[in-house]
Amino acid sequence: MLPDADAAISRDGTSLILAYDHGLEHGPVDFAPNPETADPERVFDLATHDAVTALAVGKGVAEAYYPSYDDDVALLAKLNGTSDLWMGEPNSAVNWSVDYAAELGADAVGFTLYGGSNHEVEMAEEFREAQEDAREHGLGVVMWSYPRGQGLKNDTSPETIAYAARLGLELGADVAKVKYPGSTEAMARAVRMAGPTKVVMSGGSKADDRSFLESVAGATAGGAKGLAVGRNVFQRENPVEILDALEALLFEDASVDEALEHTSTVPADD
Amino acid sequence: MLPDADAAISRDGTSLILAYDHGLEHGPVDFAPNPETADPERVFDLATHDAVTALAVGKGVAEAYYPSYDDDVALLAKLNGTSDLWMGEPNSAVNWSVDYAAELGADAVGFTLYGGSNHEVEMAEEFREAQEDAREHGLGVVMWSYPRGQGLKNDTSPETIAYAARLGLELGADVAKVKYPGSTEAMARAVRMAGPTKVVMSGGSKADDRSFLESVAGATAGGAKGLAVGRNVFQRENPVEILDALEALLFEDASVDEALEHTSTVPADD
Amino acid sequence: MLPDADAAISRDGTSLILAYDHGLEHGPVDFAPNPETADPERVFDLATHDAVTALAVGKGVAEAYYPSYDDDVALLAKLNGTSDLWMGEPNSAVNWSVDYAAELGADAVGFTLYGGSNHEVEMAEEFREAQEDAREHGLGVVMWSYPRGQGLKNDTSPETIAYAARLGLELGADVAKVKYPGSTEAMARAVRMAGPTKVVMSGGSKADDRSFLESVAGATAGGAKGLAVGRNVFQRENPVEILDALEALLFEDASVDEALEHTSTVPADD
Amino acid sequence: MLPDADAAISRDGTSLILAYDHGLEHGPVDFAPNPETADPERVFDLATHDAVTALAVGKGVAEAYYPSYDDDVALLAKLNGTSDLWMGEPNSAVNWSVDYAAELGADAVGFTLYGGSNHEVEMAEEFREAQEDAREHGLGVVMWSYPRGQGLKNDTSPETIAYAARLGLELGADVAKVKYPGSTEAMARAVRMAGPTKVVMSGGSKADDRSFLESVAGATAGGAKGLAVGRNVFQRENPVEILDALEALLFEDASVDEALEHTSTVPADD
Amino acid sequence: MLPDADAAISRDGTSLILAYDHGLEHGPVDFAPNPETADPERVFDLATHDAVTALAVGKGVAEAYYPSYDDDVALLAKLNGTSDLWMGEPNSAVNWSVDYAAELGADAVGFTLYGGSNHEVEMAEEFREAQEDAREHGLGVVMWSYPRGQGLKNDTSPETIAYAARLGLELGADVAKVKYPGSTEAMARAVRMAGPTKVVMSGGSKADDRSFLESVAGATAGGAKGLAVGRNVFQRENPVEILDALEALLFEDASVDEALEHTSTVPADD
Repeated sequence: MLPDADAAISRDGTSLILAYDHGLEHGPVDFAPNPETADPERVFDLATHDAVTALAVGKGVAEAYYPSYDDDVALLAKLNGTSDLWMGEPNSAVNWSVDYAAELGADAVGFTLYGGSNHEVEMAEEFREAQEDAREHGLGVVMWSYPRGQGLKNDTSPETIAYAARLGLELGADVAKVKYPGSTEAMARAVRMAGPTKVVMSGGSKADDRSFLESVAGATAGGAKGLAVGRNVFQRENPVEILDALEALLFEDASVDEALEHTSTVPADD
Repeated sequence: MLPDADAAISRDGTSLILAYDHGLEHGPVDFAPNPETADPERVFDLATHDAVTALAVGKGVAEAYYPSYDDDVALLAKLNGTSDLWMGEPNSAVNWSVDYAAELGADAVGFTLYGGSNHEVEMAEEFREAQEDAREHGLGVVMWSYPRGQGLKNDTSPETIAYAARLGLELGADVAKVKYPGSTEAMARAVRMAGPTKVVMSGGSKADDRSFLESVAGATAGGAKGLAVGRNVFQRENPVEILDALEALLFEDASVDEALEHTSTVPADD
Repeated sequence: MLPDADAAISRDGTSLILAYDHGLEHGPVDFAPNPETADPERVFDLATHDAVTALAVGKGVAEAYYPSYDDDVALLAKLNGTSDLWMGEPNSAVNWSVDYAAELGADAVGFTLYGGSNHEVEMAEEFREAQEDAREHGLGVVMWSYPRGQGLKNDTSPETIAYAARLGLELGADVAKVKYPGSTEAMARAVRMAGPTKVVMSGGSKADDRSFLESVAGATAGGAKGLAVGRNVFQRENPVEILDALEALLFEDASVDEALEHTSTVPADD
Repeated sequence: MLPDADAAISRDGTSLILAYDHGLEHGPVDFAPNPETADPERVFDLATHDAVTALAVGKGVAEAYYPSYDDDVALLAKLNGTSDLWMGEPNSAVNWSVDYAAELGADAVGFTLYGGSNHEVEMAEEFREAQEDAREHGLGVVMWSYPRGQGLKNDTSPETIAYAARLGLELGADVAKVKYPGSTEAMARAVRMAGPTKVVMSGGSKADDRSFLESVAGATAGGAKGLAVGRNVFQRENPVEILDALEALLFEDASVDEALEHTSTVPADD
Repeated sequence: MLPDADAAISRDGTSLILAYDHGLEHGPVDFAPNPETADPERVFDLATHDAVTALAVGKGVAEAYYPSYDDDVALLAKLNGTSDLWMGEPNSAVNWSVDYAAELGADAVGFTLYGGSNHEVEMAEEFREAQEDAREHGLGVVMWSYPRGQGLKNDTSPETIAYAARLGLELGADVAKVKYPGSTEAMARAVRMAGPTKVVMSGGSKADDRSFLESVAGATAGGAKGLAVGRNVFQRENPVEILDALEALLFEDASVDEALEHTSTVPADD
């Protein structure tokens, strides 16, 4: 963790990372709720929203679209990932070298680590190379820290999430992306464990507006410095509204209720 | 995916790739229907047909024949492949480095990825190297995207083919070669998933003229930008006729019936 | 083992290494007894104590904090380590290259070897690279020599600890960190086996002041040249007191009773 | 396959490769019938016979003897091989780098590929490196193409031998050494599959003069461009006679009966 | 095998290699009969004996002591080795690079190969690198050729030892260290198989003076060019006497009885 290494992918110290590696990780099924979202251009357009501090995509998508969005979007190069077609113990292929990511204009790199997997040692060593290569290029490093695999009994317990956050600090990530452990207290614990490494919450599968924003508010109340979100934005009918709401929540001190005013959802208690 | 990276192996944005790696992948059995096709020279001669935009062969065949066809044939260097003698979980040896392919005059490189195989991670990482080396040489990249292996229940379902096409985009292929998923609608879905990565249909095992041309027409109606074909050309008694027919279909707006006029087949409904 | 290679991490030939890799190796559970110790800054502050000759931390923690403590703390770069989430046969990921450790100002490198593990051969070869890279940078080498794994029946028997110490010498460590084998005689045997490689005792899990200091005194009476300690310092309510006591014991010829005067513990026989 | 790449190890387009890697592959048992043949010098002397176009040996033997035979013998550097002490699925260690083979004066390199083995992919990738390194040094490449392993039911069937020969062409060998498939017709099929890659017959275990020469004649009648022979030469009481006979057969248009006149064997039908 | 490559570690063509890698391979147990032998300095002192043509030690021991003995002792850098704590199929870690061995002043390198082990292929490939690196530095190469592992029924049979010796020649060792196969005849067979590669007998576990010297005499009568000995020297009460005896036997044409006069042992038949 280097101070300010995440500056290029954050705003006032907080990050809203729009993640769009679902085509690799989950496949077309994730675009089914909103078929047009299969088109990366729509997501690049969303990424120009002021609320979005970085867009996380894989190499092929970046090659095709980033040259047109270079000025308006910060690129978080998601280096590894594997298809859902494969059923083995969690692992992830390194699909993109840091050198080539830098050549394409990346502002930071992203890397998944499945702590607890039988491939943890191998993945950690690949992370070492990526992290040190990133330092040579002056790029920030975001770890998708997702304990998973044979050795894990409960991968979203507060203890596991706290450990996941700590791994980010120990191994040299500037930002650790972890699942929401379910409460502000549990998130605060994870944040404390990560020390100067910023913790961002993983958006997860689609929830209704209020639930989603409340979990974001819960996370930031616990000290999380933003979130990385995919499906909860692009699977929505009106993704711009939810980005407006997130901007209010994350950068304009709005409450959940105030933020919800940006969306067309009927308030839950009406 | 880089715009126009496939220009050297396409014509008006459409590709007709003559594939001839069967001697490695299937062995002599594929030459049995037409024994003279074991001779690569016959296939190189076919590749000079105007309809053919590239010839896909392995290193040894390219070394021996390509110097004589350099001016008339675009070379798609098929980098990996494995014999049918081996019975294990799908995998493929990298038999040709990109540097040496470039030295022999390759216009693009081809690489098989068995998504879903227990070797997917390893193959994807080999693909990374090949793809990035190809970029250094300014070569286009074609992925033979063939989900296969322990984790796959149905490797030609529309969903699997759509995922296969998407993998081409995500991992950085300019062209993704996939199996025909059986209908124009399913192919259209795959094409939509691949975004700017062009999808070409895999020719598959030999079919009668009409069936074959109808599947090609079905694929292109779904947005496929051509096909990669081997057995359906070289196993035919008169491969030039089928190439004439494909040229009409792919490049001259002919209908299947019009295209069939180039072949000596008795029309099916006569 | 090179004479004086450990000079930068010792004082009058004796080392008191403050080890703080628990966030990686054990996770947040090790900070539970004293939650503030999750904050690396507190441990860096402790490391400025005169008694401490080096602080052992991982890459991420060093990146974040060492620049501020460069003048006051000697950095022992702990190169490998693995989370407790993983349950397999003992192994350890190399998370930090020697080149980058040197760039961050390391004074020596630390490396775990699980002799007897099914990964012993692999780990020893990784140690070779680290050790030789360290020589190129003029850095001392500390081996955490911890026999462990399928082949081990008793990993703290005097015989095993003596073997562990010898591995340090044979493979080129300047300092071998081993578990306390339970008696001065057993430690003396380990020290004899290590020859010119200095042996330091591993602090282990938290014990009461007298027990802990008596084991340290037992080890040094057997020829150990200090200790590497984590939990027995940072999990204490008053870690400065125990460091004062250790300083007296290790560097000022104090007896255990004299050293205990630095702590607020009620003497055991009162 | 590059035209004329085998010129340095052939005569009028035909090769008689004297193979002497039995000490590695089979061990001393192969020298038992004629104990003096354990001495490489005797075999190097035989290799100066006009009939012999190349001598295939491993690194250690070449280091010791080739400097004295540099002018009179063409060196075929057998790069890989493994002892018969090992019982696993067929594999072969790469014992010699092409760079060092070239430095020792090699005229070509030889490499075993066990198609069908669970190590086929690994061996093919090692072959890739060797073949491309050979091209950099301008050396010919001979593949010992021996399908073998778990997946093989019958490793000398005509179909398997034809596939083996084809692998030589596809992967870039200039010469493919295959087992004799039992008939001229089967050999002709293998030769046709190999296209411009020359096929040479493997000598196999010792047979009587007439049987051996008839199989050689059968192979060359099928288009084989010579043979690679070890035991059928050096295990004979008078190896020079059989070389005289082979020279007559391969290079002087002799019939088997005429060739047999060079040997002291009583003709079979006398 | 290169002529004279072993000159720096032999005297009049014969080698007496004092081997001292037992601390790694067997651990402290080997020093129990004579505890002071745990101290490498005593063994380095022994190595200055005129009879000793080279001392074989690992990297750590060489780093610590060789600078003081550089003028008086020839260093045989034992590159690989593994602890006895590990129980798996025989394998050995490469603990020392040839480059660093050369930098420390090595006169030759030593390498263990477990022919027949499931790791034979891997070890042979590591040997290749070590052997070729040694050639670049002009260093001789000694192979500890020890068939061992799952595939071996009898690792000291004359046939196995003959094969072991031959592996030394085939793979490029200048000297092959093998176990004594029990008779002069069997040793002569191994020597014949090794050709120009010199064979030295492995000293093995401690025997009484006469038995030990008789086995050495038996081996040299069979053509062995010396021995590599550890325990039979350093575990003795008076190791200098046995070195005097070995010098008489190996370099001064003494009989076993004459050699025994150098020892204080009561002659067996008195």
